[in-house]
Amino acid sequence: MTAAPVAAVGLDGDDTLWHSESHFHAAQDRYRAIVAAWSDLEPVALDQRLLEVEKANLDLFGYGVKAFTLSLVETAVEVTEGRISGAAIRDVLELGKELLRHPVELLDGVREAIDALAGRVRLLLITKGDLLHQEAKVARSGLADSLDAVEIVSEKDTTTYERVLRRHGVAPPEFVMVGNSVASDVLPVLAIGGRAVHVPYHLAWALDHAEADAAEHGFTVLRSLHELPAHLGLVR
Amino acid sequence: MTAAPVAAVGLDGDDTLWHSESHFHAAQDRYRAIVAAWSDLEPVALDQRLLEVEKANLDLFGYGVKAFTLSLVETAVEVTEGRISGAAIRDVLELGKELLRHPVELLDGVREAIDALAGRVRLLLITKGDLLHQEAKVARSGLADSLDAVEIVSEKDTTTYERVLRRHGVAPPEFVMVGNSVASDVLPVLAIGGRAVHVPYHLAWALDHAEADAAEHGFTVLRSLHELPAHLGLVR
Repeated sequence: MTAAPVAAVGLDGDDTLWHSESHFHAAQDRYRAIVAAWSDLEPVALDQRLLEVEKANLDLFGYGVKAFTLSLVETAVEVTEGRISGAAIRDVLELGKELLRHPVELLDGVREAIDALAGRVRLLLITKGDLLHQEAKVARSGLADSLDAVEIVSEKDTTTYERVLRRHGVAPPEFVMVGNSVASDVLPVLAIGGRAVHVPYHLAWALDHAEADAAEHGFTVLRSLHELPAHLGLVR
Repeated sequence: MTAAPVAAVGLDGDDTLWHSESHFHAAQDRYRAIVAAWSDLEPVALDQRLLEVEKANLDLFGYGVKAFTLSLVETAVEVTEGRISGAAIRDVLELGKELLRHPVELLDGVREAIDALAGRVRLLLITKGDLLHQEAKVARSGLADSLDAVEIVSEKDTTTYERVLRRHGVAPPEFVMVGNSVASDVLPVLAIGGRAVHVPYHLAWALDHAEADAAEHGFTVLRSLHELPAHLGLVR
């Protein structure tokens, strides 16, 4: 740790505190099976086309399950040249609803890390996605009472982090952001003079991916949130 | 006006500052025409079924265009018993994209009212819907520089208003909420001890509708935001 004491820790939600991408992957597996009955397209080509559609829709739809579901439907119609049945479209819509209803499963070590940190530093959950769905996940996580604030944002860029830190009166050098995404949780925070801890998840969404060398950029990599209190010098 | 001076004015967005429901109505007109090619259902019955689907999805999807679009697709599949073509589903998805892309059209008197009030009371935009879409509308509205804060919320109930006012250090008796929805902008604000101004829009969404007598509940009805500065005693 360097000079300034830590005043606030920012925590990403999806794939940092709780599982998310694994549920999307499972939904996409079932999506491939639904579409396979109507198209000869190879699974890899379907995945590729879906990713292109998601990317094209990102500026308009933003992040989250509703955006994903709309892109699933659009891609299914397109790759089957409109042949896919209404019943199959209904099955695709149901995949989205199941993602929204999915119970929240905390990652290993999260509960303990939050318990160790709560009350000793300010804990700010900073997450992107569907507003209502993210709120529901916070509520279902059982962590809400330990968090000092929840910020659900449409994009995690330098502008967003500056706005959030200003709102909470936290200077960037006193701020540590913790998350699974180098693109969203690490690089923009380093860019505004904050610190960052990368906790990789075993799966990553291609549209939220960036590679960066920890030593070169000056951030820390931990294997799980279990290691966070010790890293911050805040073991109870 | 009664005793406490006004410290902050809350402004609803959709159908208070800018047109929204009229665009949804236009989209729904085109939706009826798309579905009519695949179903003998009367337009009134289709509208009714769509409303039921929207209502059933509300807890899971929340408000906004993406939720609306998903409900449009679900209803189209259901009422056509899966017969609707992929090309028609694509047309339905396109209705949603057009709603998201639609230029922001301010209601009459809004620009003048905001100009009269900005800098004299704190102006808080309090709006619900898709996070990214609402942010985009604020940006396109040209009003962002005159607003002191933008709060995009998943629901407008007493809990939400209490949280927003606490965050901004505003006591309810010093707060006036202005909006087109009695259910969302008036009754919950009165319930926490704030004041409210109802500015009806010529169209209302059935799921955001409530009737209440202004005299009995103690709120004001204005015909347009043009009348707001004088009502607040803040004419320049």
